[in-house]
Amino acid sequence: MTYRDLDDTAAFDALKDFSHSKPGIADLLTPETVRCYTMAAGEHLMFSYAAKGMTPEFVSLLQDLADECHCTDRYRELLGGAAMNTGENRAVMHHLCRGSEGLPLCVVSAEHAGFYASQRDKFLKFAEQIRSGAIKSPSGHVYDTVVQIGVGGSCLGPKTVYEALDGYVGTDGNSKRLKVFFLSNVDPDECADIFSRINAASTIFIFVSKSGTTQETVTNFSFMKKLFSDMYQGQCLEAQTVAVTDRNVSLPDRDKYLASFYIDSEIGGRFSVTSACGGVMLSIAFGAGIFSRFLAGAHCSDVLALNDDIRKNAALMDALLGIYDVNILGYKANAVIPYSRALCGFHYHIQQLFMESNGKQTDIYGRRVRYETCPVTFGAVGTDCQHSFFQQFHQGTSYVPLEFIGFSEGQMGQDFLSGGHTSQHRLNACLAAQITALAVGRSNADPGRAFDGGRGSVLLFGDRLTPENMGALIAHFENKAMFQGFLWNVNSFDQEGVKLGKELAGLALSDSGNDVLRAYYSFF
Amino acid sequence: MTYRDLDDTAAFDALKDFSHSKPGIADLLTPETVRCYTMAAGEHLMFSYAAKGMTPEFVSLLQDLADECHCTDRYRELLGGAAMNTGENRAVMHHLCRGSEGLPLCVVSAEHAGFYASQRDKFLKFAEQIRSGAIKSPSGHVYDTVVQIGVGGSCLGPKTVYEALDGYVGTDGNSKRLKVFFLSNVDPDECADIFSRINAASTIFIFVSKSGTTQETVTNFSFMKKLFSDMYQGQCLEAQTVAVTDRNVSLPDRDKYLASFYIDSEIGGRFSVTSACGGVMLSIAFGAGIFSRFLAGAHCSDVLALNDDIRKNAALMDALLGIYDVNILGYKANAVIPYSRALCGFHYHIQQLFMESNGKQTDIYGRRVRYETCPVTFGAVGTDCQHSFFQQFHQGTSYVPLEFIGFSEGQMGQDFLSGGHTSQHRLNACLAAQITALAVGRSNADPGRAFDGGRGSVLLFGDRLTPENMGALIAHFENKAMFQGFLWNVNSFDQEGVKLGKELAGLALSDSGNDVLRAYYSFF
Repeated sequence: MTYRDLDDTAAFDALKDFSHSKPGIADLLTPETVRCYTMAAGEHLMFSYAAKGMTPEFVSLLQDLADECHCTDRYRELLGGAAMNTGENRAVMHHLCRGSEGLPLCVVSAEHAGFYASQRDKFLKFAEQIRSGAIKSPSGHVYDTVVQIGVGGSCLGPKTVYEALDGYVGTDGNSKRLKVFFLSNVDPDECADIFSRINAASTIFIFVSKSGTTQETVTNFSFMKKLFSDMYQGQCLEAQTVAVTDRNVSLPDRDKYLASFYIDSEIGGRFSVTSACGGVMLSIAFGAGIFSRFLAGAHCSDVLALNDDIRKNAALMDALLGIYDVNILGYKANAVIPYSRALCGFHYHIQQLFMESNGKQTDIYGRRVRYETCPVTFGAVGTDCQHSFFQQFHQGTSYVPLEFIGFSEGQMGQDFLSGGHTSQHRLNACLAAQITALAVGRSNADPGRAFDGGRGSVLLFGDRLTPENMGALIAHFENKAMFQGFLWNVNSFDQEGVKLGKELAGLALSDSGNDVLRAYYSFF
Repeated sequence: MTYRDLDDTAAFDALKDFSHSKPGIADLLTPETVRCYTMAAGEHLMFSYAAKGMTPEFVSLLQDLADECHCTDRYRELLGGAAMNTGENRAVMHHLCRGSEGLPLCVVSAEHAGFYASQRDKFLKFAEQIRSGAIKSPSGHVYDTVVQIGVGGSCLGPKTVYEALDGYVGTDGNSKRLKVFFLSNVDPDECADIFSRINAASTIFIFVSKSGTTQETVTNFSFMKKLFSDMYQGQCLEAQTVAVTDRNVSLPDRDKYLASFYIDSEIGGRFSVTSACGGVMLSIAFGAGIFSRFLAGAHCSDVLALNDDIRKNAALMDALLGIYDVNILGYKANAVIPYSRALCGFHYHIQQLFMESNGKQTDIYGRRVRYETCPVTFGAVGTDCQHSFFQQFHQGTSYVPLEFIGFSEGQMGQDFLSGGHTSQHRLNACLAAQITALAVGRSNADPGRAFDGGRGSVLLFGDRLTPENMGALIAHFENKAMFQGFLWNVNSFDQEGVKLGKELAGLALSDSGNDVLRAYYSFF
């Protein structure tokens, strides 16, 4: 069937009309609406959206839009193996990395699910052998450090999950943690710095590149090989390196590697953290059990995202509210603000997930869209950001809708009581205060001291940042990006826009390309 | 005198008219314009702005705007001690932390300059005593680690300079470096994690809070005191702590501290990295010589910023081009992209500097402005970001003007040659390629593979990220923010917008405040 562009739907027009008479956020926000407009976003993760100014009519119009754009139908189509990556004529199968129970599969997608499960079984077993010391380094050391070499989706998602769970695993009873470094940037300082910080003899390396030819990754692996070989008299780095590539790629010297695990073309980089691209590193660093719990959390969110009723589908509701912000209210940016220092780099992953997936100007039929698509997406951690750019959110000329994240408890199990309050209480009091201050505002005769209010936000919250909740968070945002792609009618799964820069970089190195390119390159 | 709002100037109207007939960026970009529209931004730092589509007429109109808004006059007024922080009726004196030679001072500002110089002399001497081991910890250890406890400007600026210069100092002949941790977030995990990573007996702590009462900083210092006292049988943390506060603040138990250094009310947090707020930590970590070189670099940029001719004033030219982007072209965001992993956190500081300074909706006379002020400001490091959100910059529906930063050489002195190119060459080829690809674009019959071009950027570049160049970078952006404040006619030096959230957080903890606040707080 042919899907309509967003502005061709009746629901979009109805929402536009509704927006002119919509009551203000401050007027709609009461303890009752705060309780009422809250739903599950995972097994233990909740999504609260009352501070977007909700009414039954607003929900009903958003539901109409979801239906008219066939959001959940298209998700089922995707799970059933349809070529939803239209530009590259491929299926999109990352959901199946975390399980298939309760998902509507077909023969094709069941085959992928089986392949991912078999790879997962293999790397989980391998990881436990590394952790137990059953597999030692060629020089006889038990591995105690991991270096993941990969860029983009092979770095950002895996890195944010590693950072998010490191503190949790450290306070777990069964607490063996390996230290992980991420080598992504072709800047030579990055490789040199990481090499200076590790004991290479007890370090396991993971080479992650779907194509096996990503320029930064190949260069960095070769640089690391040289540093290693200089230090250890010509020993071969491949013998303590795991390769993760597409199963159809034939990596040079594949048999020299310690092990190889595979994904396939149906998994895009920014959606690959639950595949071997993230899984090999995470299960070596934290253990098979932690990684499996992370997958279970993601799978739970994937099942919730099948609900046609948007009041039971947090990812879809979040996606719709974002579309309303961009295409009805005209907001140009969006920020993710976790009140948890373990998520201090989460926005880098979210930035890629949204801006690379939906920063597009043509629809799935190759036509220019007539509306804005993905807004600028950024973020930082609370409470730090309150002392930084929140000034603009409260009193700037343009508002940035916010997505807050918070947890009742910290990860490390230590806290400090002063004046009757723990630091965790102080942290969460700040979070509640920001949501309220932005939404409600405060008048003042001096305009420089006035707060307009009416500034909306949503909140994802849970008991603690566990592996399950981290899985749910990752899947929530992946599914939100997918649904927004359906609503904007763009292909969220390719990235044609990164190609020209790559080509020109090659030309600059070969001293060809246009004169302007050479003039800039000559500065360096 | 009374200053006009931006849209009350004749130059603004003239620029608006000009924009309708302005030739496209791709048409104006040639090797000649690339060379021509480049100027010094510091002693060894250059600013290239050809990729904004420059013509003599455009420059002349921007010059008119600078003149009509009295940009350099107001900078001189500021240096002369006028109360440019209108909301708080205070002078703005941070420039004088790095020297006063060549700056037009008066009696008042000369007094501040003398005070900052005397504090600097004291803390530089103190830092060398710490580094040499002449001052040891109470338990007799030579200090080898620093923990800076502070939030907002007491963290972000100092942290980015520390990160930027750590690799440089490590390869310097005289290479003693102390490891520094930054404790800013009230999240208890942050304090617990840092304490678990340090040997507290050989760690020097720096308590940085202008008022001495910043909630996060006081709580974190008390938490750290408790952890320390639990481990070392009631020993007092103050004895190995340096306090940095406003000279008019009387900190409880001031005499228990190892040392105290001072700033004054005329230095705002986000402009304080060259004061004792950054200087104590940086000179302990890297030595008095490195910190002095950093200040010299900043001072050089401050002197350049006095030029009335915008072709010789990089900070002012950069500021004007940013105003054109926001107020004539309607761009809503702005990104800073360094191709240097040492600057991977630079955007956090820049974000605060711009969004907190100029994220305002009232002018200096207390009237609502009729135009957009500070756009969303974010960033990330290249080449990583090319594999992330650059898709949107190339093919999204809204463009984000970029400020690139790059250097000819890396910091660590190690590189890797493959295929005839070093990694540093590859890094800079990518940078040149992105500027060119965005500006020039490429047509394609398939709209999904087409690049519109016409997307502008500026570039700051230098030989290497030295202390001098880092000082120049910091001062360049500080002065750019200041000039944009003059152009928008807002007070860049207060932050009224952060107050409501602070108050409500206090109410949430005391179980008072409005019902909505309590409903949100009850989630945790």
